[in-house]
Amino acid sequence: MAFTRSSAGPAGPTGPTGPTGPTVGGWLALALLLVSAGQTCSFSLGSDRSPGPTYRTYYFTQKVDHFGFYEDSVFKQRYLISDTHWKKPGGPILFYTGNEGDITLFCNNTGFMWDVAEELQAMLVFAEHRYYGDSMPFGDLSFSDPKYLNYLTSEQALADFAVLIRFLKESIKGAEDSAVIAIGGSYGGMLAAWFRMKYPHVVDGALASSAPIWQFEDLVPCNTYYQIVTNDFKKSGPGCSESVLNSWAAINRVAETSDGLQWLSNAFHLCAPLKNKDDVGAFKGWLIETWVSLAMVDYPYPANFLEPLPAWPIEVVCKFLKNPKSEERELLENIFQAVNVYYNYTGNAPCLNTSQTASGSLGDLGWSYQACTEMVMPFCSDGVSDMFEPRTWDLQAYSDDCYKQWGVRPRASWITSVYGGKNISSYSNIIFSNGGLDPWSAGGVKESISDSLVAIVIPEGAHHLDLRSNSAYDPRSVLQARALEVQYMKKWIEQHRARNGV
Amino acid sequence: MAFTRSSAGPAGPTGPTGPTGPTVGGWLALALLLVSAGQTCSFSLGSDRSPGPTYRTYYFTQKVDHFGFYEDSVFKQRYLISDTHWKKPGGPILFYTGNEGDITLFCNNTGFMWDVAEELQAMLVFAEHRYYGDSMPFGDLSFSDPKYLNYLTSEQALADFAVLIRFLKESIKGAEDSAVIAIGGSYGGMLAAWFRMKYPHVVDGALASSAPIWQFEDLVPCNTYYQIVTNDFKKSGPGCSESVLNSWAAINRVAETSDGLQWLSNAFHLCAPLKNKDDVGAFKGWLIETWVSLAMVDYPYPANFLEPLPAWPIEVVCKFLKNPKSEERELLENIFQAVNVYYNYTGNAPCLNTSQTASGSLGDLGWSYQACTEMVMPFCSDGVSDMFEPRTWDLQAYSDDCYKQWGVRPRASWITSVYGGKNISSYSNIIFSNGGLDPWSAGGVKESISDSLVAIVIPEGAHHLDLRSNSAYDPRSVLQARALEVQYMKKWIEQHRARNGV
Repeated sequence: MAFTRSSAGPAGPTGPTGPTGPTVGGWLALALLLVSAGQTCSFSLGSDRSPGPTYRTYYFTQKVDHFGFYEDSVFKQRYLISDTHWKKPGGPILFYTGNEGDITLFCNNTGFMWDVAEELQAMLVFAEHRYYGDSMPFGDLSFSDPKYLNYLTSEQALADFAVLIRFLKESIKGAEDSAVIAIGGSYGGMLAAWFRMKYPHVVDGALASSAPIWQFEDLVPCNTYYQIVTNDFKKSGPGCSESVLNSWAAINRVAETSDGLQWLSNAFHLCAPLKNKDDVGAFKGWLIETWVSLAMVDYPYPANFLEPLPAWPIEVVCKFLKNPKSEERELLENIFQAVNVYYNYTGNAPCLNTSQTASGSLGDLGWSYQACTEMVMPFCSDGVSDMFEPRTWDLQAYSDDCYKQWGVRPRASWITSVYGGKNISSYSNIIFSNGGLDPWSAGGVKESISDSLVAIVIPEGAHHLDLRSNSAYDPRSVLQARALEVQYMKKWIEQHRARNGV
Repeated sequence: MAFTRSSAGPAGPTGPTGPTGPTVGGWLALALLLVSAGQTCSFSLGSDRSPGPTYRTYYFTQKVDHFGFYEDSVFKQRYLISDTHWKKPGGPILFYTGNEGDITLFCNNTGFMWDVAEELQAMLVFAEHRYYGDSMPFGDLSFSDPKYLNYLTSEQALADFAVLIRFLKESIKGAEDSAVIAIGGSYGGMLAAWFRMKYPHVVDGALASSAPIWQFEDLVPCNTYYQIVTNDFKKSGPGCSESVLNSWAAINRVAETSDGLQWLSNAFHLCAPLKNKDDVGAFKGWLIETWVSLAMVDYPYPANFLEPLPAWPIEVVCKFLKNPKSEERELLENIFQAVNVYYNYTGNAPCLNTSQTASGSLGDLGWSYQACTEMVMPFCSDGVSDMFEPRTWDLQAYSDDCYKQWGVRPRASWITSVYGGKNISSYSNIIFSNGGLDPWSAGGVKESISDSLVAIVIPEGAHHLDLRSNSAYDPRSVLQARALEVQYMKKWIEQHRARNGV
């Protein structure tokens, strides 16, 4: 049961003038799939190393509710361990704070952890986030009723991690005195940062990659996200962002007639033809999501997640978008060619399915609930500083949609109340890394806050590029970022050892 | 509906060999009453100042459940404000983190805050803890069903405080940039410390007075608490602690016959005569609670909480306990005289009521639930290093009692998992003050952990003496402690101003 853009779920930036945009759920859920490109736990993308370490799967019994005692049931949380390079006793633990998806995805696709395990003599642990993958608090019923969803929060997930780490340290011989470093990307990066903030007694430091911890309330402007997407297109080819900008009016005009709808459906090889205004709205939402997704995965080498993509895919897309002032049908045919790069680079797709989200299915449902409760991220566009139709952020409409879908209303101010918003200078030992190409960097920490709250910006990086395996095609900036990250991790490990006298 | 020792509730240190001891609820609940001696918000005990500042009462709408979205109801949290000495804009806020009791008790009896308000030009805020006083999440139903009690946790209370402070800063003109310092005693001191740990973006520092944050699991020996009580008696008069020690066997022997029970009942002027073994167990529990309570309130001046007490009450008590080797009935008559100091110093009590706890009624019920869920504090005694009957700590029996009374089982390891146990060195700006006479210092932080996690020990101090008003009878050590506390608070306020450029 995948959450799709066309469902009644919470829309992303909605407004009086624009169609329903891509779901917030879709966007961040996409993040998880971006790390799933190609590699496995035992193989490093872009390297010629032969299969290396493997992992074992475990299940740990967690309380469903850490913060109340009335619901006393338990569930099995899945976690994976690779200790091939672990030096015991005392070798550090790199702990992936699982986000909205099956944990094997992250295990298989966070190449950075596998790449550095040997150098750090580290144990790798990947902990699955409750309500994703195999870690369902109420089994098949978990998503069946709002009362069962009540325990899907970031706080419960962090408590799971804390309790699990305590168990690991108590039960794995040689791990008692190990330093622990939290690592995560996207929402997983937010969790890594928050984990260090809330449980510094459990983790010695955190690498929070592409973590938009400030994409809440009015901490950052709501339109920066779309501006970054726009800039990625702007610099990837002349006329490119203008073509996208002009496409909206062209679509609106063409879609005014039934002939036009028919033409649009044919021109875009749509599996299901557009029939009415709602369909057109959904179609535009699907296009927006495609452009956003391209910005997130604008990697320097071919990558493969939903569909295979070429290196620097936006440049490839932009080759079709050089003439923003073309006649409207020609412009839209070019837009199709561009979109086709994303969905049909191999040429095997018989048609394009606008109800297929760019983020795939896994985890979307859970994230949609989280976006309707804690993870309330405002987005907006203006069509001037960005290449999208103007739309304002409308919390009330968002809340109403949430109530319709989940029977809950979002609490927009809670995340900043509990995790501190911009006032986080008293925390320590967190690296915030962000890619200059990544729209999610809009809500990220891009300037160091203190000696131990360090921002690393990777100008040529898309969404958590630094967490991917080393590649020959990597820009220098990401290599430098990874080296710096390792340096900080070593420092935290040393601090831990000094403190514990080991 | 007061929780009493003789109820089916969770007992304190129970064991195979001993009778049911005083409830954990009773002990810490007592803490709150210890600060209620004599003074009002507008009057400082021991000073000749005329009535000063007053406070206003407010109610703030809080979510019943901060950590889930299914239960979306709200309740009114009471809080009190005194701004007589507040310099706006920017004067600091001293925020009392209300513990297990009616907040007016703390407002009326934390003289230290009133004493320093002028010097710090501070606003005073006293926030009531949910499920106590007037702040009932489900009104009269709050204690009627385990499902309604589900939101009585320290985490929810801290979230209340964080959300309230945000509201105050947003709504009180001139408070936007104010530093905030958390202050609390006993469980309130634990909350103050944990508040700074978990919400350093909300509070700049915390004064945690007599906060036994380490009285959990095996962080401290379970018998230190009783040893401190014993030492207080030992040094207050020759033969004193031995008399108490010898009294248990004497009671057991006398209570073997029905004549003996009758004699005991008469000798102790009991309102309800002892009839059986259970009654004798409860009677001994009541005696234990009395000795413990005396240790907590061993203040240098007359104080008045449940009953008026003389200065240094244990010395007065010990005057009756000079002959530990007396014949058993004579010994027990002396014990009665000693107990009578506590319960009947004015001589007005027609009889002594063993079902009346030393801690009074307020808050006991809520604390009993908290002791049965999060606040699982192990205690034990051995009759060798202390003056009590030997009893071990039996978690299973404790848990079974909790299940009987509340339908919940305690999670003994949760508090250390969530708040860090002894591994708290990465936190900052907390003063832990403890009195050398106070049994609760057994679980307190008595050595500084870092430059900004500072321990202050007041050798002549009983339970959070430092939070009481200045008195002419104060030992020098508590005056020094208060001066040092003010010095740190000033430092935190300066840090806050420097950080915020105000």
